[in-house]
Amino acid sequence: MKIASRMSRLGTETAYAVSDAAKTYAKETGNKVYPFHLGDMNIRTAENIIEAAHKAMLAGRTGYTSAAGVLELKEALAEDMNRTRGTHYTAENISIQSGGKPVIGKFLMTLMEEGDEVLYPSPGYPIYESMIEFLEGVPKPYRYLETEKGYATDMDYFRSLIGKKTTSLIYNNYQNPMGVTSSDEEMAEIARLAVEHDLMVLADEAYFDIVYDGTGKSITSLPGMEERTVILYTFSKRFAMTGWRLGAAIGPKVVIDQINKINTNDEACTTHFIQLAGIEALKGPQEHQAMILRTLKERLDTILEVLADCPGIKVYRPNATFYLFINVTEALQKMGIKTAEEFRQHMLEKTGVSFTHRQHFGKPLAGETEQYIRFAYSGIDVPEIREGLGRFKEYIKTFFS
Amino acid sequence: MKIASRMSRLGTETAYAVSDAAKTYAKETGNKVYPFHLGDMNIRTAENIIEAAHKAMLAGRTGYTSAAGVLELKEALAEDMNRTRGTHYTAENISIQSGGKPVIGKFLMTLMEEGDEVLYPSPGYPIYESMIEFLEGVPKPYRYLETEKGYATDMDYFRSLIGKKTTSLIYNNYQNPMGVTSSDEEMAEIARLAVEHDLMVLADEAYFDIVYDGTGKSITSLPGMEERTVILYTFSKRFAMTGWRLGAAIGPKVVIDQINKINTNDEACTTHFIQLAGIEALKGPQEHQAMILRTLKERLDTILEVLADCPGIKVYRPNATFYLFINVTEALQKMGIKTAEEFRQHMLEKTGVSFTHRQHFGKPLAGETEQYIRFAYSGIDVPEIREGLGRFKEYIKTFFS
Repeated sequence: MKIASRMSRLGTETAYAVSDAAKTYAKETGNKVYPFHLGDMNIRTAENIIEAAHKAMLAGRTGYTSAAGVLELKEALAEDMNRTRGTHYTAENISIQSGGKPVIGKFLMTLMEEGDEVLYPSPGYPIYESMIEFLEGVPKPYRYLETEKGYATDMDYFRSLIGKKTTSLIYNNYQNPMGVTSSDEEMAEIARLAVEHDLMVLADEAYFDIVYDGTGKSITSLPGMEERTVILYTFSKRFAMTGWRLGAAIGPKVVIDQINKINTNDEACTTHFIQLAGIEALKGPQEHQAMILRTLKERLDTILEVLADCPGIKVYRPNATFYLFINVTEALQKMGIKTAEEFRQHMLEKTGVSFTHRQHFGKPLAGETEQYIRFAYSGIDVPEIREGLGRFKEYIKTFFS
Repeated sequence: MKIASRMSRLGTETAYAVSDAAKTYAKETGNKVYPFHLGDMNIRTAENIIEAAHKAMLAGRTGYTSAAGVLELKEALAEDMNRTRGTHYTAENISIQSGGKPVIGKFLMTLMEEGDEVLYPSPGYPIYESMIEFLEGVPKPYRYLETEKGYATDMDYFRSLIGKKTTSLIYNNYQNPMGVTSSDEEMAEIARLAVEHDLMVLADEAYFDIVYDGTGKSITSLPGMEERTVILYTFSKRFAMTGWRLGAAIGPKVVIDQINKINTNDEACTTHFIQLAGIEALKGPQEHQAMILRTLKERLDTILEVLADCPGIKVYRPNATFYLFINVTEALQKMGIKTAEEFRQHMLEKTGVSFTHRQHFGKPLAGETEQYIRFAYSGIDVPEIREGLGRFKEYIKTFFS
């Protein structure tokens, strides 16, 4: 038996190996693990959403839906998008998906020819790079600058990457793993470049609703963008519904029609009663959503408080996502540790704190010299944050005394 | 904006247009429609399965699972397969999917190189042809012979199609749309050819449990087959869970590992609590499953009874699936109708009976002269069957008097 050669181009999420390593460590040592590696949430889905799914199942909503999804859900989502993004969508602009992730591959299948260049963030969600290579596009990773206030897109570098073969751009405002929020100026410049160079844009808005001060802003609200953008929408973070697998591709009808055709060939449709639960999520009471944000913010505040006097690391307060991207270069130097991967293993063993690092988020770019780790705080409660990062800090302090 | 050229190679399920046409007809005329076009089921999912999903949601099983699926479900499924197929699978041989359909594309992505020839049935499930062409394989449709007793694979033609570039075979015993069951001899010969020519086999066993007399037999039970076969498994028909979207790819570990990698890049995982409901489906009480079969058999008996004295058509009793593939050549001649599509429109208008036909199941092959329609009886109850097909028959009779 021979595996087809295309499979060698397909990457994966290496972060899962970190999760496995943490489990193995806990099992073998009996020690406590502090899970900062997970992008999953330990917050429950609201009961009204659960009951809507249950009611729909009992009502026999267990057969197929159309490939594009249940009309009422698409209408509710269009309304929600227009209210929060200032867009002009109708149900025709929406293709319901089994989560946000499938939108990445379907966007590229629909719009990227083999040999086309695609801009995408690095560090970034590793599936961008994986799917661009799988579908024989040419990956063009753009990068970030570290300033005193945090991270920002390196716009000079971004501009330098755009060439004649560049046809698409993946833009992940409220960025994973760095927690970056574009300034208004940065977003406007990215939009201007997309229009100027006629780029199609995948706007990965997975964390659009996980914004602490103020509210989310979508690049689709800028001139010329709605007609060239496909939004990756997901119920996962906003409603604590990660494992429900409910999302959508939202964009120009001509693209959405093609994505619906992929649905017909792939998953057929998204689970019927889950789509009905999605309507309840959008139209029902929103208190739970506010609670999710409060919970995450409390965790963020706790982390920043505990790490405030931790030597050898640089932590910036992100205004969005549930990730912290931490520069640990100095700590590693003091500890005589060469790589972030070595640091990860070392800290798991010595403190039980488990996290991912830069190498889990796309291939490193030439010239990267600093070392970074990512803390996710979606799957860990405040007492464990305090305890785990207390240990983390105290351990690092021993190298600075 | 330019849609990528690969999308022109992707087909669809044209049967959805029939469903839409029936809806439009009902709306515009106010007339009753008798839906024989649906492959969906109007039978409810068992309550114990629904309650298992509900319980899992309330217990917070709403986060991600591993890309391959929940271990306990994979173990339960391996046990079920080994009991019903005589195979030797463990959890490692199983990749949970959001339905059976995704297995088609994932099998081809994993095993078919561009330019490889793939054998598949025509008439057949249209997604085979669509995905082979999308992934740049060379479609090699095999065909069926009509005998006095029904349909059987044209094995001489099948053999003639196998060449040096043939690497895979799609085998759909208990076949949609024709309801064909391979004889033991036919299945043995297909297995022998697969081994002789070193073909990888996708065994689409979607209807394995919808067998009326006796029980299902899997090609994986034959010598040399388990190691070269990927089973498309689905909970859809067996447990009346079509819209739940739960299935699996089951096969050699080396292939399943690759399919798990595709999961990571595509849907991430199948809905967590639905996987737990799948465990209940496999391990819980099985009375509902028996009821599903009894219900379908009663419908089949009713159709055959009503159509027994319908002139101009040839109906064969299939022992599996919930489809009847009916030769309507003579009726069309009498009615002065040239194509099955024209017949479909005509009969919908005159009798309200809605059905699909040969053209909905792959491109017709050279030399096809007979006309066929497909009745699905998964979505229509006995009284409506009796009423609708009574009209169908009486209308046709008027051309024969």
